[in-house]
Amino acid sequence: MRAEYINPFIESTVDVFKTMLSCDVARTGLTVHETFHPQYDITGIIGMSGKAHGDVVISFERSVALAATETLLGTKYSEINDDVVDTVGELTNMIAGNAKSSLERFELQLALPTVIVGKNHSIRFPSKVKPLSLPFESVWGNFNIEVGLIESPEDAHAVISG
Amino acid sequence: MRAEYINPFIESTVDVFKTMLSCDVARTGLTVHETFHPQYDITGIIGMSGKAHGDVVISFERSVALAATETLLGTKYSEINDDVVDTVGELTNMIAGNAKSSLERFELQLALPTVIVGKNHSIRFPSKVKPLSLPFESVWGNFNIEVGLIESPEDAHAVISG
Repeated sequence: MRAEYINPFIESTVDVFKTMLSCDVARTGLTVHETFHPQYDITGIIGMSGKAHGDVVISFERSVALAATETLLGTKYSEINDDVVDTVGELTNMIAGNAKSSLERFELQLALPTVIVGKNHSIRFPSKVKPLSLPFESVWGNFNIEVGLIESPEDAHAVISG
Repeated sequence: MRAEYINPFIESTVDVFKTMLSCDVARTGLTVHETFHPQYDITGIIGMSGKAHGDVVISFERSVALAATETLLGTKYSEINDDVVDTVGELTNMIAGNAKSSLERFELQLALPTVIVGKNHSIRFPSKVKPLSLPFESVWGNFNIEVGLIESPEDAHAVISG
């Protein structure tokens, strides 16, 4: 994963939270994750493929997921239900979707988001991938974004054979 | 999710277990999953996109994941470590990869597999998708495959405008 690929995801996250949720978020770090680590309470994952392929993994503290759903749907939520799951999936989809427009050369297409719920679940990329991890904070609580993206072998082959 | 899309995933699963692991597996059912349900101990997810987009989710009992890793790598494993995670990711990748060659018309490309580890994690697709769920059994234990795949809007648009 090349560091230059991460900026579109940072900008997209700030933008989606601002425009969709009227919520200011701030990135508090950037690390390379190589080992198991627990995620927050609810996590959205979406795959991307094209001339590169990879995944975006966004893990939310329960408080962030509930507040985001309340803001979008105008109803109070006290537990992680279908609406909260759909909101997390949709936020994951929007953040990846916005970012891909800044990575046009990879002609990325998105898979469907899936959402994982469970205490102490951990999520791993294949060991050959070194995903970058971005912690964010907001008034609602914390969330974390991991992006692992590598150039596709077909593309490397095309360069070699061309 | 149309039922006809599921057969390549069934055939691919049987084939990958037979050829890679010398393990006979049998499908024991087929259901539409619309609600939360807990997964087994370790789960691989891979996104697919092209003229359709979706995900394959394969959840393994711990015993199956350990035995598959032992068979592939020739070493005894007693806990879920990096090797087991990589094996689950690779099996997920192979099963989706074999199936996509039978779904050529969708020109599917694969994202990277991610692997979720955690007791009682549950995985949800967006509520608009009705994934099909396939329970399998083997001498090593049980595993379950879910596939959610829908035709991409761009493709629907092309049909309408063409």
